[in-house]
Amino acid sequence: MTINTSVTEAVNGAQSLVQTLDNCGVEVCFGNPGTSEMHFVAALDSVPGMRSVLCLFEGVATGAADGYGRIAGKPAATLLHLGPGLANGLANLHNARRANTPIVNIVGDHATYHLQYDALLTSDIVGFARPVSSWIHESKNAKTVAVDAARAVQAARSAPGGVATLILPADTAWEVAEHAVGPIPDSGMAKVSDKAIERSIELLKNGKKTAILLRGAVLHGAGLEAAGRVQAATGARLLCDTFAPHVELGAGRVAVERIPYFAEQITAFLQDIEQLILVGSKPPVSFFAYPGKSSWCTPDGCIISYLAHPHEDSANGMISLAEELKAPAHVERRVPLILPDLPSGRLTVDGVARAIAHLTPDNAIIADESATSGIYLLASMATARPHTHLPLTGGSIGQGLPLAIGAAIAAPDRKVVCPHGDGGAAYTLQALWTMAREQLDVTVVIYANRSYAILNIELMRVGVVGAGSKALSMLDLHNPELDWVKIAQGFGVEASRATTAEEFNDMYLSAMRGHGPRLIEAVV
Amino acid sequence: MTINTSVTEAVNGAQSLVQTLDNCGVEVCFGNPGTSEMHFVAALDSVPGMRSVLCLFEGVATGAADGYGRIAGKPAATLLHLGPGLANGLANLHNARRANTPIVNIVGDHATYHLQYDALLTSDIVGFARPVSSWIHESKNAKTVAVDAARAVQAARSAPGGVATLILPADTAWEVAEHAVGPIPDSGMAKVSDKAIERSIELLKNGKKTAILLRGAVLHGAGLEAAGRVQAATGARLLCDTFAPHVELGAGRVAVERIPYFAEQITAFLQDIEQLILVGSKPPVSFFAYPGKSSWCTPDGCIISYLAHPHEDSANGMISLAEELKAPAHVERRVPLILPDLPSGRLTVDGVARAIAHLTPDNAIIADESATSGIYLLASMATARPHTHLPLTGGSIGQGLPLAIGAAIAAPDRKVVCPHGDGGAAYTLQALWTMAREQLDVTVVIYANRSYAILNIELMRVGVVGAGSKALSMLDLHNPELDWVKIAQGFGVEASRATTAEEFNDMYLSAMRGHGPRLIEAVV
Repeated sequence: MTINTSVTEAVNGAQSLVQTLDNCGVEVCFGNPGTSEMHFVAALDSVPGMRSVLCLFEGVATGAADGYGRIAGKPAATLLHLGPGLANGLANLHNARRANTPIVNIVGDHATYHLQYDALLTSDIVGFARPVSSWIHESKNAKTVAVDAARAVQAARSAPGGVATLILPADTAWEVAEHAVGPIPDSGMAKVSDKAIERSIELLKNGKKTAILLRGAVLHGAGLEAAGRVQAATGARLLCDTFAPHVELGAGRVAVERIPYFAEQITAFLQDIEQLILVGSKPPVSFFAYPGKSSWCTPDGCIISYLAHPHEDSANGMISLAEELKAPAHVERRVPLILPDLPSGRLTVDGVARAIAHLTPDNAIIADESATSGIYLLASMATARPHTHLPLTGGSIGQGLPLAIGAAIAAPDRKVVCPHGDGGAAYTLQALWTMAREQLDVTVVIYANRSYAILNIELMRVGVVGAGSKALSMLDLHNPELDWVKIAQGFGVEASRATTAEEFNDMYLSAMRGHGPRLIEAVV
Repeated sequence: MTINTSVTEAVNGAQSLVQTLDNCGVEVCFGNPGTSEMHFVAALDSVPGMRSVLCLFEGVATGAADGYGRIAGKPAATLLHLGPGLANGLANLHNARRANTPIVNIVGDHATYHLQYDALLTSDIVGFARPVSSWIHESKNAKTVAVDAARAVQAARSAPGGVATLILPADTAWEVAEHAVGPIPDSGMAKVSDKAIERSIELLKNGKKTAILLRGAVLHGAGLEAAGRVQAATGARLLCDTFAPHVELGAGRVAVERIPYFAEQITAFLQDIEQLILVGSKPPVSFFAYPGKSSWCTPDGCIISYLAHPHEDSANGMISLAEELKAPAHVERRVPLILPDLPSGRLTVDGVARAIAHLTPDNAIIADESATSGIYLLASMATARPHTHLPLTGGSIGQGLPLAIGAAIAAPDRKVVCPHGDGGAAYTLQALWTMAREQLDVTVVIYANRSYAILNIELMRVGVVGAGSKALSMLDLHNPELDWVKIAQGFGVEASRATTAEEFNDMYLSAMRGHGPRLIEAVV
C-alpha cells in the first residue's frame, strides 16, 4: 500500500476522500450515485487503486459490500445518493450489521447551505442511518473530509466490525480540501481475559455435558483448528449459529454442528447440554415467536459462560485455551469427503442439493439464500469439498445475489455459487446486471418453487387454521410464474432452465467448468 | 359503507384490524408479508371488502399505495414485514411524504415478549419509520389494535395527508381482541382565513406582476376552475411546481404554467414576478445546489404571501377569492386541443412524446417517471386530451411503475400510461409482476437510452471538467444493455421493442385499444 499524501496540486474534498480511502486499504466502491455525488464519481479516476462497481439499485451495492467484507476481511465503500438512496440500501445493511461486516457506507447529501430550503430530496439521513450504523458522522467542511474518511475506515474495522456511515454534503466534495491522510491505527480486537480462559477450563473439566458455540474469526483458520483441539481434549460439542456469517465447511475441516432453524428443533438439539460456552456468540433463541412456544432455547438450568465476547479475539483466545488444556497439537478427527450420487429423473430440492455437492469444486464460496431449500443443501454440502459458506445473516431476504457479487470481487480466483429461493431473488434481481457487467464468476441457482415456501410452513406454525384463498394467494407466486431465464437474459446473464435432474447436472457441470456469470432455473 | 362492530364470536387482533380498516374506508392493502404478519394475512379472508395485492418487493407496495392515494383521495394500507420490510419501502414512502399522500403504513413486528432476545430480524422500526411518517404508533396489546387502526386512518387523512405508520407486534394479531370500531371523524382541512383572502386581493389589485403558485386540491376540479376565474379577473399568472403531486392537464382545462426543473431556468421563468401568492405551496427552490448558483429562485425583492398553507382548504379558499374579486363565473380561456402529428422515421424522444400525445385517450392517468425524456412529453401533452399527471414527487427514482399499479387499482376504468426512464425503471421492476397478476390496464413505455441521462447533464452542471472513463462508466447503462422485452415477459407482461417511429405508433395504438398490462421498449 502506497500512502499518497504528498501531491502538490490543490485537491477538492472528493479527491481527498477517494485517495484517503485508498490509503486506508479500501479498494472497491459499490455505488449508485446521483447529482450530489458527481464530484465523488469524478474523483474515482484520480485514484487508480479504487475500483468502482456500478449497481442498478442500492440494495445491491450494500449487499455486495457485505459479501466483499466477509471474504476480504476488510471494508469496501458504498456510494449512495442522499437519504432515499441510503433507504434503498438499508435492508442489506441490516443484514451486514448482523454479520458484523466492516463497511464504509458513504452517503452524499445536499450542499450544507442548500438544506435550509427543504428541497424535495432532503430527508433525515442520520435518522435513516441510525438503526444500521455502528458509527455515523456528517462532514461539515471539505477540509475535514480526508480525516473523516480515515476515521470511518477505523470505525468500520473496529471489532467486531460494523457499518460506519459517512455523510458527505456536495460542497464538501467540490470545495478545496486538505490532502489525503493515511490510516488511523486499528486498536485491534481485545484480548480474551485469563479469567475467561480459566473459567472455561473449569467447565470443560468438570465432567458435565458442554457445548461451545462459535461465531466470528474462531470459525475459520487457526481459530477453528484450535476449537478442534479443545474438542479432542475435552469431548465438548462444537456448535455454530444457524446463520453464522462466515463458516469454513467441508472435507478436511474440523466439524462444527449447525444449530437448526425452528425453535422446537433448537430446543431438542440443545436438550442434553448442561453447560454452554459462548465464543463471540450469544445464547441461541428462536428466530420468531410462536404462540405457546418458548423463544429461549437453552435448557433450564444450563450454565452459560463466555470465553469471548464478539469484540474479543476469539481465535487467539481459543488457541490459548487449547494450550492451557494441553490439547493435542493436531486434530485427527476431520470431516470426511463423502460426495452424494448425482441425482436422476425428476428434479427435486434434494436432487439439486446432491448435484451441487457432487460437482462444486474445491474452495468455492457459497453465497446462500436457499431458504427452505437450504436444509437439503447444508446436509449434502457438509461432507463435500472444502468451501466457505455465507448465509443470510439478518433474515432480510434479497441478500444472496448481491452477496455473491461482493464475494466474487473479493476472491476473483474462486468459484462463487449462489443458491437462491425465487421469492428472495426477486427482491434484488438487478444484481444480475452487475454480474454481467463485471463478468463475475458466479453461478446462480434459482429454486423455482413459485412460492414463499417458508410462509406456507409458518402459517400453520403460528397457529392459523383454515386459511382462506385470499390468504394463501399472498404466499403464492404461480400467478404468473416468473421466467428466470428471460429475466436473467434481460440483464445480460447466460441462463437456462432445468426440469429434470439430468438437465440440472449437465448445466451445473458446465457452469462449474466455465467462467463468468450463469443462472440456472431449477424447476422444483 | 357498512360498519361491522357487532359480530358475536371472539375475534383476534388481526381480524379487528382488517375489519376496522374496512369500516374506515380502507379497501386495498398492498403488501409483502412475512411470518410475523401471518395472522393479518389470514384475517384478509374474513373481510370481503378488503382487496389484498401482493407485491414482490416492499418498494412496489409503498409506491402503489401512493398512486392509489393520489387518485382515490383516501388511503390504502400497506403490510410490511418488520424493520427490513419497512426499510425496503422507505424510498417510495419518502416520495409519498413529499406528495402528502394519505397512507396507512402497517408494519409487523416480533411478539412483544420476543423483542428482548434481539433475534436477527429485530431492528429499530420506529427509527426507520420516523423520517417518512407524520404519525407513528406501536400497538402493545391486541385489545387496542382496532382503535389504533382507526387512529392511523384518521392520522393519514389529516390535512394535508401523510404516512401514518402503525407497528403491530405478532402477539397483538393472534391474541383475543376487542371488536372492530368505526371511523374517527376527520377534522377536515382548515378554512383559509379572511385575512389571507383580503391580503391576496390587495396584491392582485395593486397592478404589480403577480403569480399564483398552486399545489394540492386547488390544482383540480372546482379549485382549478376558481383559479382560472381569478386569473381572468386579475391577469395573474397561474403556476404549479415542477413535481406537483396531482395535476389535471390537457384540452378544456384551465392552463397552468409548470415551473421548469433546472435552477437557472426557474430563475429566468420567475424573473419578472414582483409578487408571488402561495396556495398550498412553498417558495420555489433549486432541486440541487450547484457551485456558484443560487438555490433560492424567486427574484430579489419579490413579495411572497400565502393564500393557503398546505393544511388549509385551498380549493374553497380560491373559490372565496374569486367571489370576492367578482371574477367572471365561467372561464373562457381554456387549453385548446392541439394534437401533434404522429412521428415517422427514426425514433426519438420527441417522437415518442408526440405519439403518446396523439394517441392517448381521454381521461388517462400518466404515472410519469420519464426523467430527462419528460421535457418533450410534458410539452406535447400540454394540449392533448384531458388527463391526470402524477409525477415523481420526492426525487427518489423507482416510483413510476408502482405508482401506475396504485392508480390503475384506484381507477380501473381509466387507461394508465407509465412513461419511464430505464435507469429508474430498473429500481422497482418487480412491479411488472403485480401488473400481470392483477391484469391492470397499464401501458409502460421505457425510454431505453441506456444511461442515467440526467447525470451526464448534471456532471457538467456541478462543474466537473474532464471526467475520466471510470466516472463516465458510472453513468452508463450500455454494458450490458437491459433487454426490457425479455424482462417484462419474464414477469408475465406482454412486451415489444420499437426501433422506428412507425413501430412505436403501431404498438402504442394497439396498447391504447387493448386492455391489460403492456410494455413498449422505445429505443431512443
